[in-house]
Amino acid sequence: MKNQILNQKIEYLDQLMELLKIPSVSADPKYDHAIKKTADWIDKSLNEIGCDHVKIYETAGHPVVYGEKIINKNAPTVLVYGHYDVQPPDPEELWKSPPFEPVIKKTPLHPNGAIFARGACDDKGQMFMHIKAVELLIKNNALNCNVKFVIEGEEEIGSDNLEQFITDHKNKLTSDIIIISDTGIHSMDKPAITTGLRGLSYMEVTLTGPNRDLHSGLYGGTVGNPINILCGMIASLHDEDKKVNIPGFYDKVVEISKAERQKMNINATPEKEFQKSIAINASVGEKGYTTLERKSIRPTLDVNGIWGGYTGEGAKTVIPSKAHAKISMRLVPNQNWEEISELFNKHFRNIAPKGVDVKVKTHHGGDAYITPDGNKAYKAAEIAYQEVFGVIPHAKRDGGSIPIVPMFEKILGCKTILMGFGLDSDAIHSPNEHYGLDNFFKGIETISRFYKHFSKVNIT
Amino acid sequence: MKNQILNQKIEYLDQLMELLKIPSVSADPKYDHAIKKTADWIDKSLNEIGCDHVKIYETAGHPVVYGEKIINKNAPTVLVYGHYDVQPPDPEELWKSPPFEPVIKKTPLHPNGAIFARGACDDKGQMFMHIKAVELLIKNNALNCNVKFVIEGEEEIGSDNLEQFITDHKNKLTSDIIIISDTGIHSMDKPAITTGLRGLSYMEVTLTGPNRDLHSGLYGGTVGNPINILCGMIASLHDEDKKVNIPGFYDKVVEISKAERQKMNINATPEKEFQKSIAINASVGEKGYTTLERKSIRPTLDVNGIWGGYTGEGAKTVIPSKAHAKISMRLVPNQNWEEISELFNKHFRNIAPKGVDVKVKTHHGGDAYITPDGNKAYKAAEIAYQEVFGVIPHAKRDGGSIPIVPMFEKILGCKTILMGFGLDSDAIHSPNEHYGLDNFFKGIETISRFYKHFSKVNIT
Repeated sequence: MKNQILNQKIEYLDQLMELLKIPSVSADPKYDHAIKKTADWIDKSLNEIGCDHVKIYETAGHPVVYGEKIINKNAPTVLVYGHYDVQPPDPEELWKSPPFEPVIKKTPLHPNGAIFARGACDDKGQMFMHIKAVELLIKNNALNCNVKFVIEGEEEIGSDNLEQFITDHKNKLTSDIIIISDTGIHSMDKPAITTGLRGLSYMEVTLTGPNRDLHSGLYGGTVGNPINILCGMIASLHDEDKKVNIPGFYDKVVEISKAERQKMNINATPEKEFQKSIAINASVGEKGYTTLERKSIRPTLDVNGIWGGYTGEGAKTVIPSKAHAKISMRLVPNQNWEEISELFNKHFRNIAPKGVDVKVKTHHGGDAYITPDGNKAYKAAEIAYQEVFGVIPHAKRDGGSIPIVPMFEKILGCKTILMGFGLDSDAIHSPNEHYGLDNFFKGIETISRFYKHFSKVNIT
Repeated sequence: MKNQILNQKIEYLDQLMELLKIPSVSADPKYDHAIKKTADWIDKSLNEIGCDHVKIYETAGHPVVYGEKIINKNAPTVLVYGHYDVQPPDPEELWKSPPFEPVIKKTPLHPNGAIFARGACDDKGQMFMHIKAVELLIKNNALNCNVKFVIEGEEEIGSDNLEQFITDHKNKLTSDIIIISDTGIHSMDKPAITTGLRGLSYMEVTLTGPNRDLHSGLYGGTVGNPINILCGMIASLHDEDKKVNIPGFYDKVVEISKAERQKMNINATPEKEFQKSIAINASVGEKGYTTLERKSIRPTLDVNGIWGGYTGEGAKTVIPSKAHAKISMRLVPNQNWEEISELFNKHFRNIAPKGVDVKVKTHHGGDAYITPDGNKAYKAAEIAYQEVFGVIPHAKRDGGSIPIVPMFEKILGCKTILMGFGLDSDAIHSPNEHYGLDNFFKGIETISRFYKHFSKVNIT
């Protein structure tokens, strides 16, 4: 198997680079043509490896691509979920090479090279590993499981239409396990299987003061400036200990035992190394928790974007009519994202002073999820990682969110195994996103081996 | 004289509309060609009315247009200052007609029509009144004063190069009075002469946290988010009474006597009317002062622009590397703008928490100014307004800033009289800026009469 993978390397990379050239940004309607083109590309790709019933399913938003390979009704069935949409590339000026013109460069963490492009890791690169792993198994007549691919185009904007799709095709999608590669490992020496994800609640707020922009000389000091007020409201969302200051926010948070916390911190990146990796002189977060805990077992609130007034070159003496912010919260078990969104909405409107009108909009969200680390799929994955990386992977809880994981379990009654291969330093959602070639190829190999062991585990 | 003005109306409006079509935005280099075109237009205009020694003087920034009409060495000399540059038009989507395609429309406050365009009032419309008033006087052989025009192109960005120009041409610019129309009146029934201007200090701040944008799931809760931190820092710049919370900020503020405050409030717009005019449900400002006082005799601080993170359509789960704000302060006598800029700079860097790096830049500024209301020029203006508007104008203090006024006095040793004709509702610096036709024509007439009375006052 290993030689075959090596022989295919150049072909696979060429294909991935072709896929990365299509700017399938789901958040912005101006890229809709690219979304369509990418769905077509995935459709063609699934057909080429030998999948059956390959079809692009239209939704109320961007389409879902489906394909399957059923080898035997009695064999275990694996559902592969991935997404072909990507984050917006901005700020584009910070990319060292254009986001949709993939190039391979060496980095200290990737001495054998990494592909730089938006989506290289999240999730085109990781999703494409699955197509290639199944291709290899089919070619070698070694596929022992049934496979169903569900590749969607709205993950980066909240998977709004996926629930409907899953519900509509519930019977067709029945599986024994769902496998997703959209998470990461600590390093090539410390592989990991993600067993926890945070939830998400993404809000947008708009403050309106005066009904038009005003001259800051003629009006300065007499009206509530929506930007100043928005700043005050946002500042009040954290207390001095950096706890989220929204009534009820922590009510349902599951506290983790001291023993468990101690255990999880064994694999933590040293604090100085963490700070150095992103060039900060101090970590900032909730009092009483370590950096690892803050980004995995604790809920948080961050402003993801803010704008208002004059933001061009030079100076404009204006008091703007409106100010805006995008604010998201990462959630943990057992916070309910809709409940949290409503708490935020109510609180944010409550704290608005006189002089401004406040609008709050919920963009999207999802609940946190804990996957079991003792089931058959976990064991199969554990063996696969160990064979390829040479060490036993450990279970880790991630700070990111994949809201469709709990949704899959609710509708299909099926657990998910999160076999990611990215590194934190891959700069997903940032300029200069990249994905290591070693990660890509080891990922394909690990996934291939997972199928082998999962079929055995189930058959025996 | 009145009939002649009436006969010229259409021609004057056509000329003004031609001038307003040139997008001479000084803040943004992409409009530099329009700046040049506008300077040429003013040059041609001064030549056409019969000025001598008309010349475009290049500076380190945008050029100054000069022209003069010397009738008699012994006659009093008036220096007319105005500016041909305009504020940026954004947000352009809020304009009901394009900012550089002037149209005339009636409004409740302008039953005889107003010109809608960027610069219609500030300052092309008001500056152009002077050129036309002098044209009329020359044509009628009625000019009794020498006139010197100084029309610059950097007022909206701080007149950075005007001081050098004035210094270089100090002798040529010697005058008895400087006259500027860049302020306003309460209403057509309540004309006013502005005798006070606030100073200005305009700053820009940039916070840098991590060295790249981060995924808000993988990093959320562990690093200082520059937007959240910027909001907290901005919120702290006002105390609960809406006083500016910068050490030393009020140290040199001249307090106005109770009697004077009572007198100035006689002409104040009723609070409900003020709130209705900009559709707010509450005025917001420094405790213990009226709306009129807050915008004239009290210093203030406003955010004029803020930006950071993802501000496009939809959602992006990012912790940005940087956050920015433009923050300006309006100053009163005897605050020194350079001292205040330095106080801000020092304080803002002082309050930065660990985890971010703060940069503070001073854009530009100027000191507040009080013009005397008892001198000859004031008396000439008072009579002129009374003749045209039918009532005695009162002296008012403005919230805006014209930093070059104290600079003129410093270099030329010459007082300024602020004969403005705009209304607060003209939406200068805002979308849908406009200038009433009555204001424009009454302005021309008032200015003509000012020359007549000023020459007499000086000659007798």
